[in-house]
Amino acid sequence: MAEFLKLDPVEQSLCLFLQSFPETHLFTESVDSASAVGRVTAEEIVSGEDIPAFPRSTVDGYAVRAESTFGSSESIPAYLKLIGEVKMGTSPDFTIHTGECALVYTGGMLPAGSNAVVMIENTQISRPGEVEIQKAGSQGENCISIGEDVTVGDVILSSGTILRPQEIGGLLAVGNTQIKVAKRPKIGILSSGDEVVSPGKKLPLGKIRDINSAILGAMVETFGGQPVEFGISPDDAQALSQMVAKVYSECDAVIITAGSSVSTRDLTARVIEKMGKPGVLVHGVNIKPGKPTILAVCDGKPLIGLPGNPVSAFVISHLFVKPMIEKLMGVKRILVEPMVSATMQTNFPSQTGRKDYVPVVLSRDMNGFKAEPIHFKSNLIFSLVRADGLAVISEDSNGLVAGEKVDVLLI
Amino acid sequence: MAEFLKLDPVEQSLCLFLQSFPETHLFTESVDSASAVGRVTAEEIVSGEDIPAFPRSTVDGYAVRAESTFGSSESIPAYLKLIGEVKMGTSPDFTIHTGECALVYTGGMLPAGSNAVVMIENTQISRPGEVEIQKAGSQGENCISIGEDVTVGDVILSSGTILRPQEIGGLLAVGNTQIKVAKRPKIGILSSGDEVVSPGKKLPLGKIRDINSAILGAMVETFGGQPVEFGISPDDAQALSQMVAKVYSECDAVIITAGSSVSTRDLTARVIEKMGKPGVLVHGVNIKPGKPTILAVCDGKPLIGLPGNPVSAFVISHLFVKPMIEKLMGVKRILVEPMVSATMQTNFPSQTGRKDYVPVVLSRDMNGFKAEPIHFKSNLIFSLVRADGLAVISEDSNGLVAGEKVDVLLI
Repeated sequence: MAEFLKLDPVEQSLCLFLQSFPETHLFTESVDSASAVGRVTAEEIVSGEDIPAFPRSTVDGYAVRAESTFGSSESIPAYLKLIGEVKMGTSPDFTIHTGECALVYTGGMLPAGSNAVVMIENTQISRPGEVEIQKAGSQGENCISIGEDVTVGDVILSSGTILRPQEIGGLLAVGNTQIKVAKRPKIGILSSGDEVVSPGKKLPLGKIRDINSAILGAMVETFGGQPVEFGISPDDAQALSQMVAKVYSECDAVIITAGSSVSTRDLTARVIEKMGKPGVLVHGVNIKPGKPTILAVCDGKPLIGLPGNPVSAFVISHLFVKPMIEKLMGVKRILVEPMVSATMQTNFPSQTGRKDYVPVVLSRDMNGFKAEPIHFKSNLIFSLVRADGLAVISEDSNGLVAGEKVDVLLI
Repeated sequence: MAEFLKLDPVEQSLCLFLQSFPETHLFTESVDSASAVGRVTAEEIVSGEDIPAFPRSTVDGYAVRAESTFGSSESIPAYLKLIGEVKMGTSPDFTIHTGECALVYTGGMLPAGSNAVVMIENTQISRPGEVEIQKAGSQGENCISIGEDVTVGDVILSSGTILRPQEIGGLLAVGNTQIKVAKRPKIGILSSGDEVVSPGKKLPLGKIRDINSAILGAMVETFGGQPVEFGISPDDAQALSQMVAKVYSECDAVIITAGSSVSTRDLTARVIEKMGKPGVLVHGVNIKPGKPTILAVCDGKPLIGLPGNPVSAFVISHLFVKPMIEKLMGVKRILVEPMVSATMQTNFPSQTGRKDYVPVVLSRDMNGFKAEPIHFKSNLIFSLVRADGLAVISEDSNGLVAGEKVDVLLI
């Protein structure tokens, strides 16, 4: 029953783990840009066009040569000849010369010769065919010039970018309706434990329902992976080995929630170790909850052994499964984690050297967020249901006192 | 061309809008709990079971009657008779009496008679059939009692709860494999503007591609709605009226991105006004970008007119479309917005009375997040592609100075 000769710090464990397997985004597919939200680019996208492709007005007003308006004001207005109107979506067939102007709308194309737009609020029609300009315009004022957003040849998205709605917009803006993205990695999920039964079944005394498979499946999907559930293995070396081998062969990565006792956790580590080299990299992370975490890479494929208790599995999944999936998809630009700063409402003790993730309820007032820790034993799933986030107590702290600021990861 | 007689503050506009239409979550469907992430409960869930259903150990150790260990220490240990082992997933068929103990694993069931578990680290086998206890146990120590997580009759989820992975776990823990949820509301999306063409088409000079439909579609999906795209309407009263009427009749809510000029925005308002009572509630919100927003409710159905420029449409969608969809699904517990606190790196002017959302790039160092505003004209979609978030400058500020703290909404 020997366990945890050495507990590794969280960041260091993650680095070692991520360095030890290659990204697999070489497996790519082409998808419609419009439905690619959440996918990860597997190619650099270079714009083949200028955006905008023509000079545009940003206001409703009169397109002018700026020099025609120099010195004009409400008391000494300039008078310009109105030579036309630019209809939306058309390319005007006239040219603005000195002393001339044309009506143009927001988003409309500037006529040739014009280099500024005077807002309609600063003008009035003095007589038919003539506009009184009450404010001087400067060159480029109220205009967007060709290529001001993006120029031909600009890299608009590098490879490894997570596509948010705005990136979809950017792709379509330059006419990229198809995009090469990383395939969603298949993440195999296996529960283990003699005490665990499928949630649909009747619950004999002494057994509990497998809720980890569904929680992890939902999380994997949120993180961009494709969850594949393999059911429940008993705490038996041969059965577990066979099931892990099956998951390993069919998926790009393996997540096993270990049985709860030390011996079954050791069993999981031994089974994983046999899948290939280098095997188990980390067995035990200095974190609460989630200490008995196993991080392994076997012949280039990552495997994670999660603690069986659902709160630990949830926390560790945020910290290790998410970056694993991102690496498998070749993500280069990690999105900022939703981490709010809050004020602790009560004292919360911790252990120096250990990183703590504490479920908290958040509330907000004029002074910002307040965090109230949920007192819990780590196996209680409803502590997470009640929680808005996880307060992070760093390794170099021995706890937080009421009134202190704490970072809270929204969950 | 009269416009914006009065600009309404953001919060007030939202309240008025949300109060003016009923939630439609009466349209419900039953789905598998395991695949219900992101859905919204349409019923109160009461637990029919105690969780845990049996007293469990939280450690590997020896189940005892606490009183058998009182006063014991490393120097004066207690010696207990080892009467058995609780196999995982089984209900032990023996009872612990004073002076007795049984081996139990983490998550295992406590035998009758026991009320504490002494961790294995604080024991040793003194001779076959006897365990030396080196630490006193107190009643309930290292145990979870029946119903400690949830008790029969507890409301585990109220109606209107957004299901996160942990709520899925909670449902399955009590054996709820099916759940009644709100149907995803159908959100009709219509672009308008004579200058707008479908992104798949060749781009004639003076025209731009419709990127709003795809951006809004992706956002609606993220917010839990079901986007239905209706294409592009020309800036023509009759055509627009017909298309809006079609979207209105087929969907639970309508989003129209208006043409860019003041006259076409007014056209949108007039068309919306005809769809029913009370009609347009707000036309113009004191916000940048996004001022020309239209909020309307017609015969109980909400309609939003968004500015045509994609950055404005994006911001307004976060502020108004998201809560609209949540209300349509009957959401009662709004999740905390991912809002980080950051330090402004440069001065940024604003107008008192107006709320500003400024695209920023975030970086992080020892002192927390730093926000660097992206200097932009509001129609440039790539300002959003580069941005990590939107810095919020409140109505009562006339701008931020470098070094000042600002809330940044992650996007």
